Amino acid sequence: MRLHTCTGAPSPRRVTLFLAEKGIELDTVEVDLKAGEHLSDEFQAKSPECTVPVLELDDGTCLWNSIAIRQYLESLHPEPPLLGREALERARVTQYVLWIEHNGMMSAAEAFRNAAKGMADHALPGRRPVPQIEALAERGTRRFGHFLDDLDGFLAERDYVAGDAFTVADIDALVMIDFGCRVTSSELDARANLSKWYERVRSRPAIRAEG
Amino acid sequence: MRLHTCTGAPSPRRVTLFLAEKGIELDTVEVDLKAGEHLSDEFQAKSPECTVPVLELDDGTCLWNSIAIRQYLESLHPEPPLLGREALERARVTQYVLWIEHNGMMSAAEAFRNAAKGMADHALPGRRPVPQIEALAERGTRRFGHFLDDLDGFLAERDYVAGDAFTVADIDALVMIDFGCRVTSSELDARANLSKWYERVRSRPAIRAEG
Repeated sequence: MRLHTCTGAPSPRRVTLFLAEKGIELDTVEVDLKAGEHLSDEFQAKSPECTVPVLELDDGTCLWNSIAIRQYLESLHPEPPLLGREALERARVTQYVLWIEHNGMMSAAEAFRNAAKGMADHALPGRRPVPQIEALAERGTRRFGHFLDDLDGFLAERDYVAGDAFTVADIDALVMIDFGCRVTSSELDARANLSKWYERVRSRPAIRAEG
Repeated sequence: MRLHTCTGAPSPRRVTLFLAEKGIELDTVEVDLKAGEHLSDEFQAKSPECTVPVLELDDGTCLWNSIAIRQYLESLHPEPPLLGREALERARVTQYVLWIEHNGMMSAAEAFRNAAKGMADHALPGRRPVPQIEALAERGTRRFGHFLDDLDGFLAERDYVAGDAFTVADIDALVMIDFGCRVTSSELDARANLSKWYERVRSRPAIRAEG
C-alpha cells in the first residue's frame, strides 16, 4: 500500500495528519503538481480527477478521495477512533466533515483557483480547461469569512468541531483554516472560540510534530 | 424520529429513495420551500444551512446532511446494505457518492441557482444573500455534461456506479440526473452505458413505486 501525495497541499494534509494521529506510517510517492505530473495519462488512470492524495493498494486498486481513504484506513486501524465512536457520533462527524468541505474547502479553493496566475484555465481540478471567473474568486473570499464565523459559533458550544472528542472534522477545519486564511488574507483573532480551539488543536503532539 | 423533507426536491429524494429501498417508513414533516419556511429561525435551529432533509431524533438532536442521515439509518437498519458490504467497498461507495456530489449535484445546482428568477440572491443555500453569477450558470451546464460523460465512462466497466451492487451511489446518480437534465436541458440518449444503467435502476420496484 502506498500514498501518492504532495507535501504542503491541503487535500493530502487531511490524510497525513490523520496518519500522524493514528501513528500509521505508509510508503509515500511525491507527485510534482508544479510540473503537472498529476495531469499525465498515467496518473489519471489512478485518479480520474487528477487529484492527490491517492491510496494505491498492493493489487493496484486506487482510492482517490481523502474522505474515502480515511474511512478505509480507519477500518484497518480502528484505534484511536477518529471518525467517531458510535453510530450517531459517526454520523455527526460525517456531517461536519462535509460542512467543512462545502463551506471551507470549496470557498478557499474558489478564491485561490479563480484568482491565482498559475491557475488560469485550472479553476477546477482535472484535465478539462476551466476558465477563471473573477466574481467567483471574490465570492470565495467572502464565503470563507462566513465559514470562519459559523465555525466560531459552533465552537461556542463545544470543545471540538463535531462534539467533545477530537476527530477528522478538527483535522479538516485546521487544514482549511491554514490554507484559506493564507489565500484570502483572513485572520482568526476576532473569533475567540475559534482562536482557542486552534491553539488546542495545534498543540497536539502529532500535529506539532508536523513542523 | 421524523424526517423534515420536501417532496420532489433533489436532496430529500436522496434519503426517501434510500428509505424506500430499505423498506423503512418514517414520520415526515413537509417543509414549504416555496413559502420560505426553511429560512425561519425555528428551522435554522434544526439545520444551520436551512436545507432539507433533516432527521430529527426523539431527543431533539438533528442531522441535517443527507449522507450523514443515511449513514445513521444504515447503522439502525443494516439490511439490505446500501453503503457497501465490506471495508473497501464502503470506501468506494463513499468515493463515488462524493464524486457525484462534487460533479453532478454542484454543477446542476450552479446551473439552476445562478439562472432561475426565483433564486435571485439565493445562489447558495442559507440565509445570507448570495447574488447570481451568470458565468457560473453557464459553467454549471457545461460541467453537468462532463459529469454525464464521465459517468458513462465509469459504467462501461461495471453494472452499478460503485461496483457490481446497487448502492446509494446509484440513488444519487439517478437523483442528480433527473434534476440536472431538467435544469440544463441535457439528455442521456447518446451515452449508451448510462442509458442502459438508467433503465436498470429505474425499473427497481422501490424506485418504480415512487410514481
